[in-house]
Parts: sequence; C-alpha cells; structure tokens
Amino acid sequence: MSLPVIIIGSGFGAYQLIKTIRRTDKNQEITVFTLDEGHDYNKPDLSHVFSNQQSSADLIRMSGLAFSVENNITLHAFTEVESIDTDKQEVCAKGVAYPYAKLVLATGAKTYIPSMQGNAIDDVITLNSLREFENAQLELQSAQRILVIGAGLIGTEIAMDLASSGKSVVVVDPSKALMANMLPDLIANALQKKMVEAGIVFELGRTINSLNKTESAISAILSSGDTHLVDCVISAAGLRANIGLAKRSGLAVKNGLLVNQQLQTSANNVYALGDCAEINGKVMAYLQPILLSANALAKTLLDKPTDLKLPAMLVKVKTPRMPIQLGGDTVIDVASWQVDIDGQGCSVKAYNEKKEMVGFVVTEGHMKNAFPLLRLLPANL
Amino acid sequence: MSLPVIIIGSGFGAYQLIKTIRRTDKNQEITVFTLDEGHDYNKPDLSHVFSNQQSSADLIRMSGLAFSVENNITLHAFTEVESIDTDKQEVCAKGVAYPYAKLVLATGAKTYIPSMQGNAIDDVITLNSLREFENAQLELQSAQRILVIGAGLIGTEIAMDLASSGKSVVVVDPSKALMANMLPDLIANALQKKMVEAGIVFELGRTINSLNKTESAISAILSSGDTHLVDCVISAAGLRANIGLAKRSGLAVKNGLLVNQQLQTSANNVYALGDCAEINGKVMAYLQPILLSANALAKTLLDKPTDLKLPAMLVKVKTPRMPIQLGGDTVIDVASWQVDIDGQGCSVKAYNEKKEMVGFVVTEGHMKNAFPLLRLLPANL
Repeated sequence: MSLPVIIIGSGFGAYQLIKTIRRTDKNQEITVFTLDEGHDYNKPDLSHVFSNQQSSADLIRMSGLAFSVENNITLHAFTEVESIDTDKQEVCAKGVAYPYAKLVLATGAKTYIPSMQGNAIDDVITLNSLREFENAQLELQSAQRILVIGAGLIGTEIAMDLASSGKSVVVVDPSKALMANMLPDLIANALQKKMVEAGIVFELGRTINSLNKTESAISAILSSGDTHLVDCVISAAGLRANIGLAKRSGLAVKNGLLVNQQLQTSANNVYALGDCAEINGKVMAYLQPILLSANALAKTLLDKPTDLKLPAMLVKVKTPRMPIQLGGDTVIDVASWQVDIDGQGCSVKAYNEKKEMVGFVVTEGHMKNAFPLLRLLPANL
Repeated sequence: MSLPVIIIGSGFGAYQLIKTIRRTDKNQEITVFTLDEGHDYNKPDLSHVFSNQQSSADLIRMSGLAFSVENNITLHAFTEVESIDTDKQEVCAKGVAYPYAKLVLATGAKTYIPSMQGNAIDDVITLNSLREFENAQLELQSAQRILVIGAGLIGTEIAMDLASSGKSVVVVDPSKALMANMLPDLIANALQKKMVEAGIVFELGRTINSLNKTESAISAILSSGDTHLVDCVISAAGLRANIGLAKRSGLAVKNGLLVNQQLQTSANNVYALGDCAEINGKVMAYLQPILLSANALAKTLLDKPTDLKLPAMLVKVKTPRMPIQLGGDTVIDVASWQVDIDGQGCSVKAYNEKKEMVGFVVTEGHMKNAFPLLRLLPANL
C-alpha cells in the first residue's frame, strides 16, 4: 500500500491543492489534519460579510464532511498535529503516528494583535478564518460601535464593510496613511476621504495604549490620550505565519516557512503553501499566488516536479465606494509616480530610481487599464 | 491750468498706477481720494502677518502723507467721493466738485460675509485691507480660538498662518475641498492633510447657521448641527467688487466695473483697475494682472492709449507648509490631469476636452517647473 500525501490545514491553499490534484488523480491517498471542522468556504467573502448580512453558515460552500467525501480524502477534523518527524517521514496527532509519502504544511497565518494594557485584550476579535468569524458573529451583529486596529488592506476593507452595514467605525493605525505600504498618498487620501464621508473615523499615526472593559463598553485609550468607547474591537494589524509546528520540527523558518521554487521546505518531501510559506523572502497572503502555488505543487506531488512561476499579479482592494486594483511595487522602492486623472478615476504608474516601471494602481472607472498595465510589469518569479 | 487725473482709492492698484506714471511724468497733476489714511503698504503681507508677529504699523511702507509728498500728489484722506458726473467730468466729495481730465476708479473689493443668524454677525472680522487688519489686530492677538469662514485661497493662507502663530483654527466652507476652484483634489487633499497635521480643523461641506455671543466666546452653530466655541470669526468667503459709486453714477457694471482692453469704463475718460474692474468677464484679484493693468493704464492716461496684454500668469499660494504655484485653468473647464510625483513634490498639467494643456499646478520642490509650464499656456488677453 502506498503512503498518503498528508496536508496540515484546511484553508484556501490546502483545499485548492486537493481540488487540483483530483483533477488529474482520483486515487492518490490524501489525509488532511485540521484544527476546525474543515468546511470549504470562500475566504475573500469575509471582507464583505457584514454588508451582505451573511452568517458564517452562508459562507460555507461545502461542509468538511461533504468535501472529504466529494474529494475522496481522509479528514481529521479538530485534530492538531503535534509534531513532525522528517526523518521517519511521519506526523504525530493525538498520540498516533501517521507516515506520509509527502507532507504539505498549509497552516496559514494568524492575525497579529499589537501589545496593549488592560483587561479587554482577550476580547479583541480577529477575522482571518471562518471559525474566527463564527465565534465573533453574534457579538459583531449586536455591536454598534466598532474599533478596527489596522488600516492596511484587510483593515480598510473590513472598516468600509462595517460602515456600509450601518456600524460606527473607528480605525487606528500607527501609519499616517491608509494602506501605507500599498497605496501612494494621493490614492490613500482619496480613499480616506470617501471613508470619512461614509462616517468612518480615522486615528492615524496613533496606537492603542489600553483596552479596558467598562460597564457598557470597551474603553480604548490611544497614544494621543484620546478615548473611544466601543462595543467591540477587531484586529486587522497584519498576519503572522503559523510556523510554530514547523519550527519545533526543525524546518527552516524566517517570517514564514522557507520554501524553494518547488515549494519544498528544508526537509525532503515536505512542502508548504499559502499564508504560512515564505518564497524568495516574501510571504504572499493573496489569492492569486496561492492559486498558482496550488497548481504547481499539485504537479510536484504527483511526481512531475514543477517550478512555481509567478507573473506580475493583480491585487483587488474590495472597497466598493472606491474600487482599487494594483500590481507590482507601488510604494516601496518607488522613486516617482506618473498619474492620469479624469472624471472616471485615475491610473498611477510607479517607477524606480532607474525610471523603470515597477507597479501601478488604477481606481474606479480606470479598471480597464489594469490588465494592459499588468502586462508591462516584470514577473515576480 | 490743465485738469488733474483723479484716482479714487489708495490700494495696491491705485498706488502702483501713481508710481508708474511718475516714472515718466513728474508733473502730471494727480489727486487721490481715499476712505482711509492712504498709507502705502504691501497687501500680500496680510497673509502671513500673524506668524511674522507684525502689527499694522509694520506693514506700512510709507505713510499716506509721505507718499503724497514723495509722489507729488494731492491726497484727500478719509474722504468719500459721493458721486461722479461723467458728463461734466467731475466728482463730488464733501459737497465740493472736483473736475477731472481723467478719472480712475480703484475702489477695490470688500470681503463677502455669508448670511447667518445671531447677534455676533457684526463682530465678523474681514482682512482685505490694512485698515481692516488695524481695526482687528488687538482682538486677533488675544484670541486663541479662531473660526475662518472660507477655504479659498485667502481663507487657506490665513488659516495656515494663524495656526503657525499658535492659534486653534477651524475652517468652514460649503465646498467639499480646499480651494475647490483652483486645486485638483489630489493637491487639495494633500494640503488639507498638512493643515490637519498642523492642528487645523476643517468643517467642509458645511455652512454656518448662526453666530451668537456667549459669556466668554462666540458660539458658531453649523449646518451639520455641530457647535464650535471660538474667540473670533474671520470671513474670507470671497471678494465682491466695490461698484456702488460706479453704479450710482451710471457706469456699466456686472460682477465688477466693466472695462475694455484699455481699462476704460462705459464713460469717456473714466477708467478702472484692480479688484473692482471686470475685464473680459473676469475680476482678477491677483497681484500680477493689477501690476500689468497699472503699467498699461499709466501709458493710456499719459495719452499713449495702450491695450492691456495679460500673459498666462502665476498664482502663488502662500502656504509655507506646502508651497503651491499654479497657472491657467486648473479645475474649471478641465477634463483630465497628468501628474508627476516624486519625493520632492508634484507637477500637475491640466487638459481640456480637446486635450490641450490649459493649466498647471506645482508644489514644494517642483517650483522650478513653474516657469517652463507657464510658457506652455495660452495668454489670457
């Protein structure tokens, strides 16, 4: 009997990998270990779940059980893998050793929560998975005043969505601008203005000193000394790859689990993909690189070693009041921008010191420029 | 004995005209009627008088008396011209008729004060002349909280200057952006951000419903329902040409006193220049057109009829935290903008529907681009 491919994790990367394998191989044994139920859901929907008035159940495309039957896999739900023995090629869960032919870590990432004082820190909500949303949805439904920590991509999307669903929203971020690493100032300012018009309050250039429960609210005291009384606090202050198990098991890690261009870790027959993997110094927690990773890795696992090729990729910012798409380097390593603005929106090209185009941003009615601009960018890998 | 040139007004336009005439003709009789003392002062200094800690006396280049002696003119200070008889060619002041060979109206403009309710309306300060500043300077010195009505060029300059001198400043304007007729959004947003960082509070998209005196403050209630308690209120809500006398005297007026390209009004031998004059449908309350008007009119008055030629002109926005210069049409009649941004600042070119460049804006380190861009613009007249 041949050994299975074992996959740790049941998020977008893991399940995309399984679906891709099954397109060419119906029989390869696959075993999945996951900390939750293993439902198949569309993670990007989490960014507009409030304005769509969806519950966690609405996001589920297929239950874990149904998915395991449909895809002919062995699913160990609610099961933590405690250790990996890369020499013996087995993982250990609930005291049982499971040998693998190949192992894939798709352990994802968790949301960072900045350090603060106070007795309400444990009440900070994160929304990086269906389970986290499930745990928080009742509280979020009844909350009227919500503080969002982080004005990056996710914080911005969530804040706009909460405001669109009628909540009072305050966003706190130590940066002076929205999505400071992704958007040039002029776009960030315009987006901020639209969000302020939607009633969102920004506390930029500030951090939270303390979060404390009062009788009827959570009191957030900012570094400025200002206080906001809110019903709940969501952190969207960035992701940290889940690399604890990998590290304990002796795999090479840095910000993420280090992999080569075939997504192989430092151990033989052990691979990683998704938000936990670091490729070429980058952890790319976006849909498109994970999709392409799953495609390449499926071939590699089926004994056709395949390099991951990453073209220049489009990032869509799900901010319906001012939709934005971008690609390449748009802030970091950018020396100058060239912008075309008209009544429809704007197109920004970003250039490096050598006057080479390295990125772009398009907004609103300029979306038609996104793909032509994307084709002008160098590939990522 | 030859009749004098009579000039009504002693502002920048009037005095520039006199200086220019005197450069070629020392003897032409000139009589000036003015409502104030007739001091020669540098009006643009009013925009940074607070941060420079200047008193009204500091702005005076030469007293009215000294100016009249230096330039060999007859000065009627504190004297209102009550009427003009364009047939008899004489003006009437304090019941006395003064015949003229040529008459120049340089009656300037007054600051508009939007209509509001309340008992503090008469306390609204305007700063469109040395005298107005003189009357208000003590009150402004002791005021800590100041509300500025108007976020146009002057309101913006004054607000930044007040903030730089340590005052708490609130700016109210019905427009959604700073200098909405002059600056494209991306520049206006950036400027607004710098001003917010300097502590200035903006109430844009709002008007003032009422201004009422309370025991220790003026209470301004906005259209939003929000209230600001301040020590004084300055209006910088735009200028209205002083055309009452001209209208009473049967001269053709519209927004300003209508003049042709030789600055002649609808009456023979009667001219107008400065903030009171409307040329080609425009009242141009800027330094450069007034300078050029004074130059052309001086020749015309000395019997060398000369057309006013207005090239494309530079407007400097005196906002030291983010200096801006612009020329041509930058918002109105603009269909699209092209922007170059780098670490130094930005350069904006404005285009009309036909893709012809019609205006530009440069900021901060991009000032060196101002004159090259100016040369690309069509002339005004």
